[in-house]
Amino acid sequence: MLKLFNLEEKGWNLLIKELNERANSESEEILESVSKILKDVRLRGDIAIKEYTEKFDKVKIKDFKVSEEELSECFNEVDVEFINNLKEAKENIEYYHKAQKGRGFILNKERGVFLGQRILPLDSVGVYVPGGTAAYPSSVLMNVIPAKVAGVEQIVMVTPPNKDGKINPYIGVAAKISGIDTVYKVGGAQAVAALAYGTEAIPKVDKIVGPGNIFVATAKKLVFGTVDIDMIAGPSEILIIADEGAEASYIAADLMSQAEHDKLASSILVTTCKELYEKVNSELEKQINDLLRKDIIKDSLINHGKAIICSSIDECIEVSNRIAPEHLELMVQNSMELLGKVKSAGSVFLGYNTPEPIGDYFGGTNHVLPTNGTAKFFSALSVDSFIKKSSFLYYSEEAIKEDGEKIINIANKEGLTAHANSVKVRLK
Amino acid sequence: MLKLFNLEEKGWNLLIKELNERANSESEEILESVSKILKDVRLRGDIAIKEYTEKFDKVKIKDFKVSEEELSECFNEVDVEFINNLKEAKENIEYYHKAQKGRGFILNKERGVFLGQRILPLDSVGVYVPGGTAAYPSSVLMNVIPAKVAGVEQIVMVTPPNKDGKINPYIGVAAKISGIDTVYKVGGAQAVAALAYGTEAIPKVDKIVGPGNIFVATAKKLVFGTVDIDMIAGPSEILIIADEGAEASYIAADLMSQAEHDKLASSILVTTCKELYEKVNSELEKQINDLLRKDIIKDSLINHGKAIICSSIDECIEVSNRIAPEHLELMVQNSMELLGKVKSAGSVFLGYNTPEPIGDYFGGTNHVLPTNGTAKFFSALSVDSFIKKSSFLYYSEEAIKEDGEKIINIANKEGLTAHANSVKVRLK
Repeated sequence: MLKLFNLEEKGWNLLIKELNERANSESEEILESVSKILKDVRLRGDIAIKEYTEKFDKVKIKDFKVSEEELSECFNEVDVEFINNLKEAKENIEYYHKAQKGRGFILNKERGVFLGQRILPLDSVGVYVPGGTAAYPSSVLMNVIPAKVAGVEQIVMVTPPNKDGKINPYIGVAAKISGIDTVYKVGGAQAVAALAYGTEAIPKVDKIVGPGNIFVATAKKLVFGTVDIDMIAGPSEILIIADEGAEASYIAADLMSQAEHDKLASSILVTTCKELYEKVNSELEKQINDLLRKDIIKDSLINHGKAIICSSIDECIEVSNRIAPEHLELMVQNSMELLGKVKSAGSVFLGYNTPEPIGDYFGGTNHVLPTNGTAKFFSALSVDSFIKKSSFLYYSEEAIKEDGEKIINIANKEGLTAHANSVKVRLK
Repeated sequence: MLKLFNLEEKGWNLLIKELNERANSESEEILESVSKILKDVRLRGDIAIKEYTEKFDKVKIKDFKVSEEELSECFNEVDVEFINNLKEAKENIEYYHKAQKGRGFILNKERGVFLGQRILPLDSVGVYVPGGTAAYPSSVLMNVIPAKVAGVEQIVMVTPPNKDGKINPYIGVAAKISGIDTVYKVGGAQAVAALAYGTEAIPKVDKIVGPGNIFVATAKKLVFGTVDIDMIAGPSEILIIADEGAEASYIAADLMSQAEHDKLASSILVTTCKELYEKVNSELEKQINDLLRKDIIKDSLINHGKAIICSSIDECIEVSNRIAPEHLELMVQNSMELLGKVKSAGSVFLGYNTPEPIGDYFGGTNHVLPTNGTAKFFSALSVDSFIKKSSFLYYSEEAIKEDGEKIINIANKEGLTAHANSVKVRLK
């Protein structure tokens, strides 16, 4: 199912060209209709949201706020084992994210001068959670826990209601477990608008995070600046570097775990061992039939899957560094030795027994990752995504008298005499 | 010159409404012409850049790369005192930014499981530096030094040539002092395009930073995602909280240092002391006549200046927290006590003798700050702006055997059976 790409024969340029073929286009139509929804919600608030919910979700909602009773009832609709698994996952995720928490600092200099930086949590955050078939409770944990750890006081969630006007019980359970303050049953671009501008029922927040369809993604893009947003997720990818010691059945399974997300997902095997590629291909054929989303997997593997044969492990790493994959599995004997050579990857999974889904659900690292090669400059969602840094500076009278002329000189050279003047008045 | 706003009489809603009147509109025309330039440079590379440079900068450039000789010559055109001042500023800026540098971590858990996060510098950064009257050497330092401290290997600069085909000597000196690798004489949207896509002469980078006019800002917005960018700077602001002990002449000078940037700049005094407002107003009249940019200052103060009278210092802080100013001066007796109550401000200047321009040039904190109220969720440019974080996770065979069923259960509940399968194959 995977196409072979021999780097030595075909060269880097062709590889990069082939990899860039997954472009995602944004339609003018969607932009226009989303922009209309945003404006409408900004002007008409709750009334507009009610209308859009009726139109898109086919249900009349009287009160967007999900009651405590409805949230508690979710726990009755979900098996206890799942609840316990999710609670354990939460602990692992919390443990990891607590280690991310940064601290402010202060530097004391001569003459009483001091300066530093404070770390402050955002005041409020809104988490978007899709409904329907793309309702992922794990995603609730991954978006909420870092915000909680950062110290955000108000975390609200929006999620579309089903046709009975209820929310998905798995989402409800995940919301409670992760410690969401309030859940509102509203979805789509109208939910993003409500969080960005505020309505009578739904509070304006400082930042909107969470995955969504193209309408939600476009709405987030358009409100950026009015509020902060997380990344816009593009088609995602897994890249597996494997040596002779790696099990072909493991590799095949891991490639498909990514491929099932999306027809545009890209699953790439990079190896020095051509026999391994052949074994993986036959394992793919063997395993795929038992999988629910086999059509998507097939599409994704055939169009965007690839096995790249390299002449050395260092060349394998070079391929990965150029691609900057969202997920990188190092299925090699000495994975820690290779880790140091990895320059760009959202999240790295080490050794033969760390399939990427452990990170998706349970291991503790975040699964909201930079996609489509943006790991070259973007990072996973983290505690840092929910803080802001504020610097401070104190100058004493003695210090400004001593440094004043230097500052005046630079300001004057830039033609900013009012800047110079603010120091001058203090030298008199 | 400052309009009075009495919070008690007029209330919060009116204040917020008046403050929001500074909207910046982006024209369709600019969007279209920038988009054309980007496409053109992507397709035709250096040839396109040469044409645009001839068109917009009125000069034919044969070689975009500024030679070592030309850079060295800049030092002859600039007075020695300025060079020394800039070098001292560089040391202060470096000292502060080194303290920002984060570190990776690793957490070792039971059963051989470990996970953590690595901090990696971006590979390459492009710094845009305006030419002409807006050529600010200080801005070169503020953009380059954090990237250097982060460990970015390749830092290049683009700046438009003057009509003789030369770069501004102050910019050249600042580039050398801050440690830029290569300077290219190209400006405008075409320079942003070159950095985003790469041309024969100019390398593609991972991130583009630095201020620019509306064409540069629009180009940066449009290439976002292909590369990372820093914030899009909006109209900036200073907010000064002052008590009875503050000198009216200092306050007036500091308000004007911000007002001279831009007609849209907003300079706000917040105080409990109405007499102070009156004294500041007469100081403004007194000081303004000696300033080069008095017309801009007048425009800015009359249209966007404000003196807000509050009933207590805590209310002053509340005003500031709602506005989230780019620059906040705490001209009060016990400024450190108030600092803890400041929730949102790009940079805070403490006490009577720390006018904001010390931070612009010399103190060490960064002057690239979130504007237009975005300090609620954005932060100053920092070392963190030039790094990416990459997580890693290792599971042992023992651990996956023990946790496997839990992960399978969550994956199945989400309908992602290929995710479940990647764990299942390892439990056999």
